[in-house]
Order: sequence, then C-alpha cells, then structure tokens
Amino acid sequence: MSEPIAPLAPGSTIGILGSGQLGRMLALAAARLGLRAHVYDPAAANSPAGQICDQATTAPWEDTEALSAFAAQVDVITYEFENIPTATLDLLGAARPIRPGRRALEVSQDRLVEKRFLQDLGLATAPFAALDGPADLEAALAKAGAPGILKTRRFGYDGKGQARLAEAAEAAAALESLQGAPAILEGFVDFAFEVSVIGARGLDGAVACFDPGENIHRDGILRSTRVPARLSTAQRADAVLLTGKILNALDYVGVMGVELFVTPAGLVVNEIAPRVHNSGHWTQNGCTICQFEQHIRAVAGWPLGDGSRHSDVEMENLIGDDMDKLPAIQAEPGAALHLYGKAETRDGRKMGHVNRIIASG
Amino acid sequence: MSEPIAPLAPGSTIGILGSGQLGRMLALAAARLGLRAHVYDPAAANSPAGQICDQATTAPWEDTEALSAFAAQVDVITYEFENIPTATLDLLGAARPIRPGRRALEVSQDRLVEKRFLQDLGLATAPFAALDGPADLEAALAKAGAPGILKTRRFGYDGKGQARLAEAAEAAAALESLQGAPAILEGFVDFAFEVSVIGARGLDGAVACFDPGENIHRDGILRSTRVPARLSTAQRADAVLLTGKILNALDYVGVMGVELFVTPAGLVVNEIAPRVHNSGHWTQNGCTICQFEQHIRAVAGWPLGDGSRHSDVEMENLIGDDMDKLPAIQAEPGAALHLYGKAETRDGRKMGHVNRIIASG
Repeated sequence: MSEPIAPLAPGSTIGILGSGQLGRMLALAAARLGLRAHVYDPAAANSPAGQICDQATTAPWEDTEALSAFAAQVDVITYEFENIPTATLDLLGAARPIRPGRRALEVSQDRLVEKRFLQDLGLATAPFAALDGPADLEAALAKAGAPGILKTRRFGYDGKGQARLAEAAEAAAALESLQGAPAILEGFVDFAFEVSVIGARGLDGAVACFDPGENIHRDGILRSTRVPARLSTAQRADAVLLTGKILNALDYVGVMGVELFVTPAGLVVNEIAPRVHNSGHWTQNGCTICQFEQHIRAVAGWPLGDGSRHSDVEMENLIGDDMDKLPAIQAEPGAALHLYGKAETRDGRKMGHVNRIIASG
Repeated sequence: MSEPIAPLAPGSTIGILGSGQLGRMLALAAARLGLRAHVYDPAAANSPAGQICDQATTAPWEDTEALSAFAAQVDVITYEFENIPTATLDLLGAARPIRPGRRALEVSQDRLVEKRFLQDLGLATAPFAALDGPADLEAALAKAGAPGILKTRRFGYDGKGQARLAEAAEAAAALESLQGAPAILEGFVDFAFEVSVIGARGLDGAVACFDPGENIHRDGILRSTRVPARLSTAQRADAVLLTGKILNALDYVGVMGVELFVTPAGLVVNEIAPRVHNSGHWTQNGCTICQFEQHIRAVAGWPLGDGSRHSDVEMENLIGDDMDKLPAIQAEPGAALHLYGKAETRDGRKMGHVNRIIASG
C-alpha cells in the first residue's frame, strides 16, 4: 500500500499495538494533538493505555477478524513493543501503513540480525557470535570472547533471556539456561557509562535527535537517565550522527531509542529499539515536544516538532516497591510524577517514573 | 460530608462535571498522575473530554439517577465550568466532596455577589450597580456611571450576555437586549492592560500562584496570553497577594483564574473563575507542573506541585477558521500545539491553542 503524503487531519485515529505505559503515553500525546488513539492488545481492557483511549480492542494477536476490524477503524498503525508476530504484521500492513516500517522490526526483533545490520553500516558493536546450539559454543567463545553475555536472539527485554559469563567455563550451563533458544554471545565491552539517543525521523525524511541521556541500569533494568550526559562535543556529535545513519538506513518513520556504550575507543552501539524508549521519558519535562509527541507527529505524517532541551533533568523509574516513596515524591519541589495506572505493584514492575528538574535554561 | 484527609491513591477516580476542552485537559493531567477521570455532561459522548476518559456519563443535569450512579463511581467531584444547577450540586455534594466548594460557586455564579464579595475583602473592582429592571436604570447610571458594560448577573461567558454602553442614552436599549435577566451595570475602568493570575490552594491550605500572564481579548474572547506580563515587582506581588486573599477567604481547593485590570491607581479585579482558566494554558509549556495538574493535585488532596516558570511563552487561542493556519503551526519551531478533538469548526469556537516558546530559562 502506498503511503499517504498529507498529514493526518485532527480527529484521525492512531492505532497502537500494545497497551502498556508506552502506549498510554503515546495515546496521551495523540490526544494533545487532537488525534484519537485505538489500542489493540490481548489484555487491553483496563490496561495502562486502554484506560485513557477512545477505543481499545482486547483480542489475541492471531484473531484475524479482530485485527481486520481494528485496521478498518484506524488511519495508521504504530506499536509500543517490537515482538509482534509476523503474521499479525502481514495482515495489518496490507490494510494500513505500519510506522515504523517492517524493516525496522525485522532488524530489531533479532539480536543477530541487528548486530549484522549495525556492522554493515560501519558502526562499532560488541564482538558477537551466533549460537544455534552447544556445538557452536567453542567457535563462538573464540570469536566473541569471555567474559560476555549470552542472550536469546529474540523476545528478550529488561534483562530477561540473558545469562552472564564470567569465564568460558560457565558457557555450557548458561546456554542450557536459555532452553535451546537460538542465541548470540556478546563479548564484554569495557565502557565508562551508557548513553542513549532518542532519534526521530519524519515521513518527509527529516531527522531530529533529542540530547543524549546518561543511563544507569540495575539488574538489567533501567533505573535512571540524566541529561545532559557527560559527553564531549565530539562524542555528542558522533552519537547524533550515527543515530541519523541508522534511521536513514531503515527509511525509518517515528522515534527510535539507540543505546550506546561510551568507551575510550569511541561509541559502541549496544542495541536499538524501534519505538519510544524508557530512557527518553525525561523529554516530557525537559523539552517542548517530548518523545511521545514526536513519535505521534512522525507516524501521523506531521512535521517533526522542536525537541530542544530547556532543562537539565534526571528521570528515575519507579519500580515495584519504589511506590512506597510516593508521598515523599508527591511533595518534592521540581518533581514531575508520571504514573501508569497499574493496579497491582509487583517486584520489578515499572509503575511510573519521576522527572526531576535539576536546572532550567 | 467530612473531607478525607489522606491524598487519593493512584487508581482513584476524579469526577468532572462538563466535558469540554478544560475537562479534556484535566482528564489528561489526571492520567499523567495515575488517576482516572469520569466526566458527566448532557453531551459527554464523543465530547472533547469524553473521548479520552475512562468513563463518560451522558445525562441531563436533572437526572437524579444518573447523578447518583456517577457519584458512586468517583472519589471526588470537580468541574470545568461554574454554571452547574444548584439542585445538581446538592445531590452530588451529599455523596462526595465537591472541590472547589459551594461557596466558590455561589460567589462566581452571580456577578453581583462576586463584586460584593471582592469589595468586602477590600479589593478594588469596577464601580457597579444592580439592575433588576428598567426602574433601577437611573440610580444605577448615577452609581456606576457611563460609559460602562451591562451584564447579566448569571450565565455569561466569552462576551455573551453583555452590552456595552458608550453613553447613558443607550442604557434602556441595552437593558432590553438582555431580555429582562437580572443584570449588573459595571462602570468603565480605564486600564493599561489586563493580566490574570492562576492561583491554586491545596486541601492543606497551601497557596501557590503561577506567574501572572498578560491577556489580549477580541470581541470579548481571549485571543492570547503572554508571560511574563509587563508588571513591576510590586504589581506582581500585589497580584499574587490578592489572589491568595481570595483563595483563603473562600477556603478554596483547586485552581482559580483571577482577571485583573492594571491601572495607574493599582490592580482592579475584573472577575474570578473557580476553575482552570484559558489564560493559564501557557503553563502547559512554561512550567513543570501546569494548571491542569495543579488543579487535579489540589482536588485529589495531594500537595501542590512546583509551578515555577522555566520559559517565556505566548499562548494563542485557535478560534474558528484560525484552524486554517494549522499546517503552518505544525511546522513552526518552538510551537506546542494543543487541539481539543472538536469535529466541527465554527465561528467563535475554541478549537485549540498553541503555546509558543519565546525564550527558555
């Protein structure tokens, strides 16, 4: 299906696959712009996004009837997570534009494909090797080295589907813990810290990046992002340029998160996410146009907005019993709270985040 | 009913009377804070607020059954406009806290009561006189003078229910145009410009005001608000202090708009609105916590947030065929667009607004 050129008119509907907090904040951004949102999710009812959407479809990813009805009611389709089944995308993509497009999903759904894509672009990545089973182990260790991290090629997030290898001797057990899933061994990168760039590309090909943020992870989950990151002017330029390179190579439309290791030898791409990204939540209180609005603008065919940063911000995720700190955060000057409408607090569950303004201007 | 002391927990529901753009932006702010919104309006279905709310009740203000069901489903009730029938408030107020409270509504629903309230507080107002019919005309003109403005005591907004008097001889015809409604004659105030203060008072009695904005009206409708206003430090302090006085006198909970004339003799209160206010829309892109979130925080019993201003902003209302400018505004750097989801553009209808960042820091 050919892409419409005209920007979607006010009142048009953005279809969103997935109904978690990213979908929720995308739907809120759409509402600000006078656009409607319709989420599709096997658990859309009463979900973070379903609560605040004009329409929500609760149906499995395999329900062709529900998918067709959904597609018929929306003007464009986007998503809040990358692991959408291929058959679902085939059906939806035949009816409506899906933005970001299929190429971005193919690349980011598989860690091996992603690494090869980045390498082909001339970008630095961790050393890596494919691992289809125990027979590949020795060759993979020789190529990627140890220590390292063994990861499933598909369906990993927030540290799930990963096993660390302190030394080569642990490799066999680690591989077994992945239960035979096709895997990739990534050699360890000795980095000073991690930053991420939230980049955006419009339907017209224009590219705009938010200021890189500096990330702190714990137990494989992002805990905080701080802007500005401790980068030199040259590093900042590199980060933005390589993000533009990735966006252009994928003919990308929407917002992408690009995680980068900062090393003495330069920036190393850790991973890319074809969607709005947790490390971009600071933009809600640091910029006139946040990552969620930027993504909606792009997928709606609008010109990209002005994402320049007006404040120094530290974003902190509220995970599990971090919610006990709520009374203190509610009363904290300069703190902007964002909660996701999840009924039940669970260990490791992202319940909300707080953007703290460190300095303005 | 006694007021609960504890702040509403995440997942609680704010009931909102009225489902226009103010209700919409209140509901969006509630969502950011993890609170739900349920709007009640005779025309809630597909309304600006109804589109983005978890729940919407479409029923007349007199429908006691629907009102009771609504009250049972919400934790606290607020409103986006002041002309709610008294019987409706009686019924709802018996079931749930209404914030801001009844006193604020009684005062602001009637221009005469409002003027007397302000005068009793020692605040300057335009000279005024009550006018129950033609027999009062001569005495009213003697007291309030001409030129002036004849206004209905109740149900006026955006210049409706008003007639200007250039001279006393026009008074009889002007009064007739109001079709016998109880009226007030307000003498003309010779002012340099108008500012408004968006003030907030928490359930704990804390008061916080946003920086005063400078307003431009055309045909009785607000066209733009600019911050900072051209006020001296002393005028700025006066504006904030008198707003605090009004909020405290009403034992107010929530956000209030206070319109002030700036005259050589000091600030003159034009009118007060017991709700979020069009002249406070700039706060969405000029402050960490906007007026809508501040109002939700107050009515939910949360501590007030940090409304300090980080940017200079000009807010422009998009009224009627201002919507033709949309393509240009979409592409304008530093412009944040807010659209209300109204399907039909009509003359004089507020369709959205744009906040332009003039300078940051």
